[in-house]
Amino acid sequence: MNSFKTKYRVSWVDTDALGVMHFSNYFRVCEKAEEEFTNSLGVSFSSSQDISFPRVKATCDYKYPLRFNDIATVEIKIKELGKKHITYHIEIFNETQQKEAARCELTIASINRDFSPIPIPQEYVKLLEKYSV
Amino acid sequence: MNSFKTKYRVSWVDTDALGVMHFSNYFRVCEKAEEEFTNSLGVSFSSSQDISFPRVKATCDYKYPLRFNDIATVEIKIKELGKKHITYHIEIFNETQQKEAARCELTIASINRDFSPIPIPQEYVKLLEKYSV
Amino acid sequence: MNSFKTKYRVSWVDTDALGVMHFSNYFRVCEKAEEEFTNSLGVSFSSSQDISFPRVKATCDYKYPLRFNDIATVEIKIKELGKKHITYHIEIFNETQQKEAARCELTIASINRDFSPIPIPQEYVKLLEKYSV
Amino acid sequence: MNSFKTKYRVSWVDTDALGVMHFSNYFRVCEKAEEEFTNSLGVSFSSSQDISFPRVKATCDYKYPLRFNDIATVEIKIKELGKKHITYHIEIFNETQQKEAARCELTIASINRDFSPIPIPQEYVKLLEKYSV
Repeated sequence: MNSFKTKYRVSWVDTDALGVMHFSNYFRVCEKAEEEFTNSLGVSFSSSQDISFPRVKATCDYKYPLRFNDIATVEIKIKELGKKHITYHIEIFNETQQKEAARCELTIASINRDFSPIPIPQEYVKLLEKYSV
Repeated sequence: MNSFKTKYRVSWVDTDALGVMHFSNYFRVCEKAEEEFTNSLGVSFSSSQDISFPRVKATCDYKYPLRFNDIATVEIKIKELGKKHITYHIEIFNETQQKEAARCELTIASINRDFSPIPIPQEYVKLLEKYSV
Repeated sequence: MNSFKTKYRVSWVDTDALGVMHFSNYFRVCEKAEEEFTNSLGVSFSSSQDISFPRVKATCDYKYPLRFNDIATVEIKIKELGKKHITYHIEIFNETQQKEAARCELTIASINRDFSPIPIPQEYVKLLEKYSV
Repeated sequence: MNSFKTKYRVSWVDTDALGVMHFSNYFRVCEKAEEEFTNSLGVSFSSSQDISFPRVKATCDYKYPLRFNDIATVEIKIKELGKKHITYHIEIFNETQQKEAARCELTIASINRDFSPIPIPQEYVKLLEKYSV
């Protein structure tokens, strides 16, 4: 089983008055990593296309804070590869502090312009399969 | 059992290129509502104080999109009132479209300046109890 | 000359590790106020329409910080009402600290779906005129 | 005269319902680039230190939109290197569309924990001087 890994450096704007990355920004870090993952597959879906992948569920368990300029590794695995949805399991590791930062899951659905669920294109499924748990 | 209700109007900056509120912003809307809830109780915790309430878990199930200028009702209930944590159950309703928009849960922990868990102050617990499920 | 005034409460997510509202969020506060202003005029432009008003210039001078839960008054005046652009002058006042927080200007252009400049609709100009300096 | 250059890929969360990067996010892109610049100098200031660099003025002129997954080059020059302030001139170029995207300026002040202006440390000035226009 493969995973996709990327790095993220915590920006000043990511922090809050407690000096740590705001909890909502972990979801943004996950999504950025997912974008890099799909870009790495040579697949890119934009709003001008007939297919979109909105989130239907998002979860994060926060373990240890990330602070300004900390470097995180974001590791993406595919936990579930359904006909019309994908569930990503994402681990965020604080490299600067050598601690697990967060564990998140994002479930995305494949929809058309009318927001109706449609099957994930077969050539995309093939690319994703090697990242499935 | 009581709940706390507030309204939120979707801003342009909340939207993404699909024309809907970005999934990470639902968490921000939840937190804003929580802030109004604790303000309504006469309780306000800032970063300069000896107690903070970071999130340890956050979940959202997305049901129906919110678009620019849509009005949402955000309803907060306390699902769990622990000694050192609180779990909020939050329902976001799209008033403009008359559809349930999302169901979210936030678990927050009570910590001191060293990020160690500490009991939620008793006078705060008393205020929260009447919102417990 | 009239101005439009609204309030904004600083959220936790608006703050950064210095304990103050992040400088980029002043622009978001300005835009939210502008949205409330145009809503108050009974005018609302969404992305599905044939006209949009992207920003062509944005400026903020920061005078005094806003902190978590501070209440700001945001006052909008129209500094320039051109054929195809509007320049807003926006003053943000920290009510909690009784200090001027920031002075900002936003210039927005009227464009069609092809991002070409088009005249601001005449009925909209009429509504805006009474707010012109 | 030297400049510092870095790349930025537009994320989905950066976009708005018009399909373009939200105007407030250009300021965030500028700040991220500034962070990479100061990191490259071996200098990093965090909130725990006795010196901070809040923005006192921020300006952007928007020339051409950035869309999802567009790659931007962000080029930083020092326009003014004062005793207690720095003005950055920042050009954002849309590499994907080969168009100038925006021209921004950020003026930052050097302050202590009491938010009083203090001189920029001399060893930092020396590092910055070679980037001054």
